[in-house]
Amino acid sequence: MNLRIDQQRLQSEIDELAQITEAEPPVVTRIVFSPADLRARPWLAAKCREADLSIRTDAVGNTFARWPGSNPAVPAIGTGSHIDAIPNAGKYDGVVGVLGGLEAIRALQRANFRPKHSIELLVFTSEEPTRFGVGCLGSRLLSGAFSPQSAAHLTDERGDSLDTVRSAADFFGDLASVKLPAGYYKAFVELHIEQGPILEQRRIPLGIVQKIAAPASAKILIEGSGGHAGGVLMPDRKDALCAASELILAVESAARATHAPDTVATVGICEVFPGAVNSIPSRVRLSLDVRDTDLARRDSVIERIAEAANGIASRRAVSIRTDLLNADAPADCSPLVTQTLADSCRAHCFPFLDMVSRAYHDSLFMSRIAPTAMLFIPCRNGWSHRPDEYASPEDIARGALILAETLARLSS
Amino acid sequence: MNLRIDQQRLQSEIDELAQITEAEPPVVTRIVFSPADLRARPWLAAKCREADLSIRTDAVGNTFARWPGSNPAVPAIGTGSHIDAIPNAGKYDGVVGVLGGLEAIRALQRANFRPKHSIELLVFTSEEPTRFGVGCLGSRLLSGAFSPQSAAHLTDERGDSLDTVRSAADFFGDLASVKLPAGYYKAFVELHIEQGPILEQRRIPLGIVQKIAAPASAKILIEGSGGHAGGVLMPDRKDALCAASELILAVESAARATHAPDTVATVGICEVFPGAVNSIPSRVRLSLDVRDTDLARRDSVIERIAEAANGIASRRAVSIRTDLLNADAPADCSPLVTQTLADSCRAHCFPFLDMVSRAYHDSLFMSRIAPTAMLFIPCRNGWSHRPDEYASPEDIARGALILAETLARLSS
Repeated sequence: MNLRIDQQRLQSEIDELAQITEAEPPVVTRIVFSPADLRARPWLAAKCREADLSIRTDAVGNTFARWPGSNPAVPAIGTGSHIDAIPNAGKYDGVVGVLGGLEAIRALQRANFRPKHSIELLVFTSEEPTRFGVGCLGSRLLSGAFSPQSAAHLTDERGDSLDTVRSAADFFGDLASVKLPAGYYKAFVELHIEQGPILEQRRIPLGIVQKIAAPASAKILIEGSGGHAGGVLMPDRKDALCAASELILAVESAARATHAPDTVATVGICEVFPGAVNSIPSRVRLSLDVRDTDLARRDSVIERIAEAANGIASRRAVSIRTDLLNADAPADCSPLVTQTLADSCRAHCFPFLDMVSRAYHDSLFMSRIAPTAMLFIPCRNGWSHRPDEYASPEDIARGALILAETLARLSS
Repeated sequence: MNLRIDQQRLQSEIDELAQITEAEPPVVTRIVFSPADLRARPWLAAKCREADLSIRTDAVGNTFARWPGSNPAVPAIGTGSHIDAIPNAGKYDGVVGVLGGLEAIRALQRANFRPKHSIELLVFTSEEPTRFGVGCLGSRLLSGAFSPQSAAHLTDERGDSLDTVRSAADFFGDLASVKLPAGYYKAFVELHIEQGPILEQRRIPLGIVQKIAAPASAKILIEGSGGHAGGVLMPDRKDALCAASELILAVESAARATHAPDTVATVGICEVFPGAVNSIPSRVRLSLDVRDTDLARRDSVIERIAEAANGIASRRAVSIRTDLLNADAPADCSPLVTQTLADSCRAHCFPFLDMVSRAYHDSLFMSRIAPTAMLFIPCRNGWSHRPDEYASPEDIARGALILAETLARLSS
């Protein structure tokens, strides 16, 4: 089989999709069900139809573009990722797996490959937690990791529920119908930029993910007492932002204290109320994100942060409430898929590295219902979730090629 | 003279004005030139016209409501305050001095008092720094403490300049024309809630301000390096929010380290960019507000904060830029006015306390062009700049009565 990736076409599609953004290009902001997301979806569906894929969407907007195999009785092979993007992001996160997956399918078609198992390109809804506070919403529902009842009651910043927002975006039906039946996929494989610096630093073009880190996230609400910045003396203050600052530093220390490179903890959101130059902050909302490849170690970090919060609350006489939003278990990737990926790399004489994904992905949830693995390509400086995120056209094309080879082997 | 304050009418006017808000009453948000401010101005002008006051406004929207004296050749006596309010404020800050001043004039009219000097009620534009980042904008321009050129180029959060915003609000003309000529006022006196707990704690109904604290404010921009919360390891991070947290705690420590009760320092604004659960903060904007009655001590606090910022920037490899927005000198009040206030209190047999104002006021700038002092009344728990700010109708009426007595004595 003569597999050939159309690097130029793939790159121009990535560039074109990056123009569909709520921000000023090259900044990509494409929050789920935003006007930009709702323009990107039909653009992508048209590309899939050009490749003769048949499209269905489910009640939460997950999109399945299928290339039918010769034997409709055997389970499909899935590949794909997401096209939603956090505020002020770049153009590769998620998109490489979606457009790279589409190009892999086209490459197989051009090579006159005839799959036995159908090959299905998935575009997951809301991998990013930006809008509803829960990441991987689509794959959580597909895999049954999240109850349809809880999902229906998620709300965004404006107070609109997922049910309201998805129906405004034309996705209807019972969320319970999103869950895939057991055995739907024979295997699932996701192509993605590394979002870390290791492949670049070690000059290895491909990474095969063996384990996906366990993420936990929480909302933290700190309530102190406000007042005029001139009127309330220092000893009388219950400044919620000073309390938040101690807690943010405690989060950083807790992650560092494990001395394990795989432990990371981040406060990415800090909203101050009332937020005026001359007002003592009375209320602060923080987000907390803790990840580790080791579940017990991650939970010990969360425990340490909770202890710090208790100490701060009692010393400063403020209240600190922590709501754990999710605390998923880490995933081991499937040897079936990792070995097929490794065989594909060897077949094309590309070096590869066995890796851990510290970022989490829809694959974390797909691994619950299908043998799953991921293929990483390098990205510049390990940067992601920022406008200068970059992966070279050559690296992307190489990833798509190995993905195509892997899909061919899995679907034969 | 039989001076009598119509406590019920004054209170109902305060309540009525509190309904003109961008927020849900009882929360008052009335930012300068917002729709609420632009509804409150004509409401107030109508009240002034009912009291036969003649009204003029200047190029920045300062409003002067004049009760002409019998001798137009002698300078006027000024009183007044502001009606703008920060987000999520209460109904007394500023308003008590404006509506209390109006009621004081009406009380003098009812008592058939005939002033020799005209009495002028001033309503200052933008005492609060919320919109343009500079407090006491109107009185700064009136007193020449701020250059019209700099003022014209102030911008709000949306990037609109003061010039654009004031002309949209129907205030035109050269900002240089706002400055009052020397000798325009014989005296200026401002009635205000204390915004601190001292009068209430000591059960003294009136405070005569002898000194107004020296405020300084700055914008601080911290730039680190963003990235995916899962992808960048702890030792590789340049988290702008962790740096900001250290600085916020350093601000608190610097104020406490003087061991002087009059030193206060506050970070009221903390804006995080990009502000997503799974993104490392790359940029944080802070506001800084430092106040003291002693100029040298205040400047030593600012110096200590700057040193802390340098240390944090170098340890964390982030950049920290501090722009000092203003650093005004403290004001001594005029013995002419403080003694007249004291005589008025004695005449009505009310105890009073000589005080310092740690909050700053338009009087700070009026003191540069006129003999100035302030009269404080108690407010509950010292709370201000919050919806539960409260002063009792009796305390407000007592303040208006002493203000009327003082205006009578100064204008005779």
